[in-house]
Amino acid sequence: MQIIEHRWPVRIYYEDTDMQGIVYYANYLKYLERARTEFLREKGFEQDQLIEQQAVAFAVRSVQMDYIKPAKFNDELIVATQVQQLKRVSLVFQQTIIRPADDNAIINSATIKVACLDAHSMKIKAIPTEMIEQLT
Amino acid sequence: MQIIEHRWPVRIYYEDTDMQGIVYYANYLKYLERARTEFLREKGFEQDQLIEQQAVAFAVRSVQMDYIKPAKFNDELIVATQVQQLKRVSLVFQQTIIRPADDNAIINSATIKVACLDAHSMKIKAIPTEMIEQLT
Amino acid sequence: MQIIEHRWPVRIYYEDTDMQGIVYYANYLKYLERARTEFLREKGFEQDQLIEQQAVAFAVRSVQMDYIKPAKFNDELIVATQVQQLKRVSLVFQQTIIRPADDNAIINSATIKVACLDAHSMKIKAIPTEMIEQLT
Amino acid sequence: MQIIEHRWPVRIYYEDTDMQGIVYYANYLKYLERARTEFLREKGFEQDQLIEQQAVAFAVRSVQMDYIKPAKFNDELIVATQVQQLKRVSLVFQQTIIRPADDNAIINSATIKVACLDAHSMKIKAIPTEMIEQLT
Repeated sequence: MQIIEHRWPVRIYYEDTDMQGIVYYANYLKYLERARTEFLREKGFEQDQLIEQQAVAFAVRSVQMDYIKPAKFNDELIVATQVQQLKRVSLVFQQTIIRPADDNAIINSATIKVACLDAHSMKIKAIPTEMIEQLT
Repeated sequence: MQIIEHRWPVRIYYEDTDMQGIVYYANYLKYLERARTEFLREKGFEQDQLIEQQAVAFAVRSVQMDYIKPAKFNDELIVATQVQQLKRVSLVFQQTIIRPADDNAIINSATIKVACLDAHSMKIKAIPTEMIEQLT
Repeated sequence: MQIIEHRWPVRIYYEDTDMQGIVYYANYLKYLERARTEFLREKGFEQDQLIEQQAVAFAVRSVQMDYIKPAKFNDELIVATQVQQLKRVSLVFQQTIIRPADDNAIINSATIKVACLDAHSMKIKAIPTEMIEQLT
Repeated sequence: MQIIEHRWPVRIYYEDTDMQGIVYYANYLKYLERARTEFLREKGFEQDQLIEQQAVAFAVRSVQMDYIKPAKFNDELIVATQVQQLKRVSLVFQQTIIRPADDNAIINSATIKVACLDAHSMKIKAIPTEMIEQLT
């Protein structure tokens, strides 16, 4: 499979920090999802339309995430996203959060497995063919 | 109308704080809503059942909130809730967040106006009679 | 005082929504704060530098917010920010969230009062002169 | 090492859900941390006192989390926490979120590695002896 790389910027605000003065550990999952949403949008897929028109929804099945350096208030980060594995009913994203102003230091590295579901029954369903084609 | 007073405890965790070392200002709205949910539960109303069985949902229409003292990590707070006004399609809650260990210092004081909606059309709808009775 | 108007875009992601399918009511406060942060940045003020170099921090003292229309997943909103009142130790922001694709429909309208504090003692402190000048 | 098991209840509110009608995937990390905080509290350790009195802070280094079943609004969950590994400067928690009303169905299973840091320098530091003793 070709390497599909997508980059999405994230700015850190007060809402993202905790009393240690750094980004709260759950919030990185938000940035990773914003980036996956924008990655799919760039490929031509809007998740609200997928739900309404094709009853296709995605659900995260597993997260493996390493916290390498802390991010701070006002940081400008980049989330790099690529599809690592693409199967009939699931796909695996490899995502890395970097801080360009810090010599591209890696802040966070994550592997996210996502399953394709029927938006009504929430049962597993094949990823739409046109998505398979766009992501391959 | 009689004074209906309900008290609900909230503990402050890392997730609630920001880099100023205090509770982030949006998070108080979460505590106020937890307390309104528990207040309704105590009165016999589960919001998921109201949606499913009677197509009744509630939506906040306005918030007026004063931040009087900051709350901090590990604080044990109490949210005091009462119905200040009850009309056919809306109600107004008066809610106060206090810190008992700090001589019942008032942390936050809020007035929240909530409208009753049809859960499908999201149009305004009369508050169910049995709820009017329970809250009066 | 001249009208100071600043516009900042917000995209709505999964993290912002709740089970009613719309933006959770506390989250609008996050967008308002992102916009105030960017407004100050545009005027030349970085809040982390204000804290470190001048021991100046800001704390929200009151919020008055009207929820006019709900925002939904994927919405592209604009937060319009202006200073409504500027005093020695506090300022009042008037902020409006609109949805341009919906004929500029107003989603949310808020008045936010912010106090200037000493970042160490958390006591009230005069707003720095250069900020008064930039915001007037 | 003996099995140390701690159980902590979590109720699901509107703030926890997203437009799929289930708990948003980042929020489980909040419940896991609330439970770790309460686990440490039960063992006699308050994290704010550890920071102030001993300059000891904890930082999550990695998360491995499986989403097994979705949690929904109003769910009453239990977070079960145990220490899986305890070293000089880090410890590993095994945490499971279950739904008792659903025949103790497992909702989420996570392995969280936490490092002990100096709260000022944020450099790695030995876990305090009295904590090692309490957790062994």
